[in-house]
Amino acid sequence: MKNFFNPRNVAVIGVSRDQNKVGHVIFRNLIDSDFKGKIYAVNNNAKEILGFKIYKNVSSIKEKIDLAVIATPAETIMNVVKDCNKKRIKNLVIITAGFKEVGNGKLEKKLADYLKKNKIKMVGVNCLGVFDGHSNLDTLFLPRSRLKRPKAGGISFVCQSGAVGSAILDLASEEGYGFAKFISYGNATVLDESDFIEYLGNDKNTKVICLYVEGVKNGKKFIEVCKKVSRKKPIIAIKGGLTQEGSKAALSHTGALAGKAEIYLGVFKQCKIIQAESLEEMFNFARILEKSIKPKGDRIQVITNGGGYGILCTDAIMKNNLKMALISKDTMNYLKKKFPKIVVVGNPMDLIGDATTERYKEAIFSCLNDKNVDILLVVLLLQTPLISTDIVDVIIEAKDLRKKPIVVVSTGGEFTKVLRHNLESNNVATFTFPESAVKAVKKLVEYYN
Amino acid sequence: MKNFFNPRNVAVIGVSRDQNKVGHVIFRNLIDSDFKGKIYAVNNNAKEILGFKIYKNVSSIKEKIDLAVIATPAETIMNVVKDCNKKRIKNLVIITAGFKEVGNGKLEKKLADYLKKNKIKMVGVNCLGVFDGHSNLDTLFLPRSRLKRPKAGGISFVCQSGAVGSAILDLASEEGYGFAKFISYGNATVLDESDFIEYLGNDKNTKVICLYVEGVKNGKKFIEVCKKVSRKKPIIAIKGGLTQEGSKAALSHTGALAGKAEIYLGVFKQCKIIQAESLEEMFNFARILEKSIKPKGDRIQVITNGGGYGILCTDAIMKNNLKMALISKDTMNYLKKKFPKIVVVGNPMDLIGDATTERYKEAIFSCLNDKNVDILLVVLLLQTPLISTDIVDVIIEAKDLRKKPIVVVSTGGEFTKVLRHNLESNNVATFTFPESAVKAVKKLVEYYN
Repeated sequence: MKNFFNPRNVAVIGVSRDQNKVGHVIFRNLIDSDFKGKIYAVNNNAKEILGFKIYKNVSSIKEKIDLAVIATPAETIMNVVKDCNKKRIKNLVIITAGFKEVGNGKLEKKLADYLKKNKIKMVGVNCLGVFDGHSNLDTLFLPRSRLKRPKAGGISFVCQSGAVGSAILDLASEEGYGFAKFISYGNATVLDESDFIEYLGNDKNTKVICLYVEGVKNGKKFIEVCKKVSRKKPIIAIKGGLTQEGSKAALSHTGALAGKAEIYLGVFKQCKIIQAESLEEMFNFARILEKSIKPKGDRIQVITNGGGYGILCTDAIMKNNLKMALISKDTMNYLKKKFPKIVVVGNPMDLIGDATTERYKEAIFSCLNDKNVDILLVVLLLQTPLISTDIVDVIIEAKDLRKKPIVVVSTGGEFTKVLRHNLESNNVATFTFPESAVKAVKKLVEYYN
Repeated sequence: MKNFFNPRNVAVIGVSRDQNKVGHVIFRNLIDSDFKGKIYAVNNNAKEILGFKIYKNVSSIKEKIDLAVIATPAETIMNVVKDCNKKRIKNLVIITAGFKEVGNGKLEKKLADYLKKNKIKMVGVNCLGVFDGHSNLDTLFLPRSRLKRPKAGGISFVCQSGAVGSAILDLASEEGYGFAKFISYGNATVLDESDFIEYLGNDKNTKVICLYVEGVKNGKKFIEVCKKVSRKKPIIAIKGGLTQEGSKAALSHTGALAGKAEIYLGVFKQCKIIQAESLEEMFNFARILEKSIKPKGDRIQVITNGGGYGILCTDAIMKNNLKMALISKDTMNYLKKKFPKIVVVGNPMDLIGDATTERYKEAIFSCLNDKNVDILLVVLLLQTPLISTDIVDVIIEAKDLRKKPIVVVSTGGEFTKVLRHNLESNNVATFTFPESAVKAVKKLVEYYN
């Protein structure tokens, strides 16, 4: 499977002169990307495109090819694939649509049989293909002006819907979420969601696996694989079409027999898959699970510079059946001595509006060393000028001790965004609102329990 | 009350030379702002600050003063206020802390009695004061480098927590939410939340009122006012300290006797106040209520260019007990004739990945004219290059007909953000995720029901 994500070279088959055509966009994207491997363009009807030599077919390329990305019309696919087989290419991404999803199941079956017989692995058909945040390989036919690629990170996303996948990748680029691998597998003609989940279970770059699925292809295989993988790393899933109406819509979308909601939710539970209620939740959960170490328990200490935020955090902690930590007498006395009288040394610990970075540092490290605290929830309201930008370094330093998970809540505009991106880049999960942060903490506690 | 938000002039009392002191920051912010009124600085110990003449006291200013903002220490307050009374200033914002909240209830009582006796209105003490998105008046002591001010709009926010307020204003500036008025009223020494809600009920710039409250000062007055105002415009509220632990935290924050959750929620219901579960929800609800016209019913038509998004919208609609619209035979036949065969003319209506602006236009206007549709939920995934930027004009044109509420879901990065800001500026509510959009639609339907 490695050649799907980190091949030494790629041949794009069907690179049209027309710059709006899928094959052209894929090729141009690869040229513009930081992908280090060699790139070949194939088109039986051109000599040179974008300054690159065009090969009539893959057989006319001399080098051994690790991965072929195919974007020629459905009716040409069998011939193209046979040519790839002649060239002994073992990994194909077929972007092309026009198979089962439009009633052309016969052609798809023929293709599947041929590929299986010749032991060729294939992502597709009718898909966006793959993106790798580390190797920068990318078969997405959406231009970089519209879909920015996210940076490297630990989240991998297996996605049955190309549109959901591309929208999320684009959002992730803006929000600063780091991706390991993205797979849009379309009709799952040969490889299906379970194959990818199994592979990602062993992928060292992948810390957490996200899944958007409308219908699972092989239930038994899915259960077997997910049970195994979820012991190694978290799997977070959304099932599209959970309601009856939604399920009908799924049928006309991917032709997925969506199956009863209860069955899916039962399977998720059985496999220890974390169910997300929304895409927003999915990536909130993914970020905290990607970045946090295992908590020893569920006692949370809130540290804040805004009283109202302390209260909202407390409400959220109680609503989610988590616990407010009770710091030891020693910590309490130490901090009471250190801090002005007006600071509330308790939980929430309200460092109040004039809190400095130094005051945060005292509070964070004291709580980190207190045996009655399992998780730190740090509210940073950066609107007050007395907190300097080195609060970021304090939190990273505290996190690097790897004693307890530290989660940050920070609401604000431009300035806040810059500091949050900095924290996220250093593997600290940050949230805009107390409630979403605490919901994510709940999943962190549950996963490790 | 008008003078709190749109005074002809303002005197800032306690403008220190020290640029980190509250009075100095407030004065500098006013100079830097687009506030059109005259600004006076008062300090009994300086001649000139930031190039402005400094007055020894308000009495030495010749002009009649509409509003005084006071930032001198607590022990000086009585003298300053008496001076203001001599000058016949009827509106005060007192930023100063050091009263009831630190056990100095006696001084606060004395102040309250004096102000009431002399019929002086006062916002404060121990607060951020006010911000007006239209007049640009602003008494916030947080520098613009840290707290960006949001643009003008229809949301007003009455907030018992200064930190919650300032964080939200800063966030709003980044997200492009428009504000009418913001009031941080601190200890509510004279004017309380009910006074502001009543005023905002009659304020033409305010389309929707948001409230963060830990404890209501006068329950009877609150119920009376809110019942009256919520008939005119929506009130959305979060009660901080709903849980027992949260309520304890509120006690040490604002000294608010938080009261039992059930009582608060009962009062909210009785007054037709929309309860939000989180700050995120509050502003999602506020934006849709600010921007949308009254829907005739709860039948929603989903139009999308991504199948997966159509399914997620459908699931969310069903989970929220709303209805999927069933377009008429005529609309169905018309669109089927217009669109390529692969387009799913139904609900969700999947215009598929190669949807153009023109295809969206056909779908949107047909559904707008279909009597079986009450609300349009338009998913715009802008990662595909065939949708041009004039999709924004199509949606604004459709919205301006004022036939049906149109709500947009659009997930993505930089490009998406620009188009969404454009829509928001033109009074179209946009959301990142299907689930949050549908939850907000639910509140829109409920409010007008």
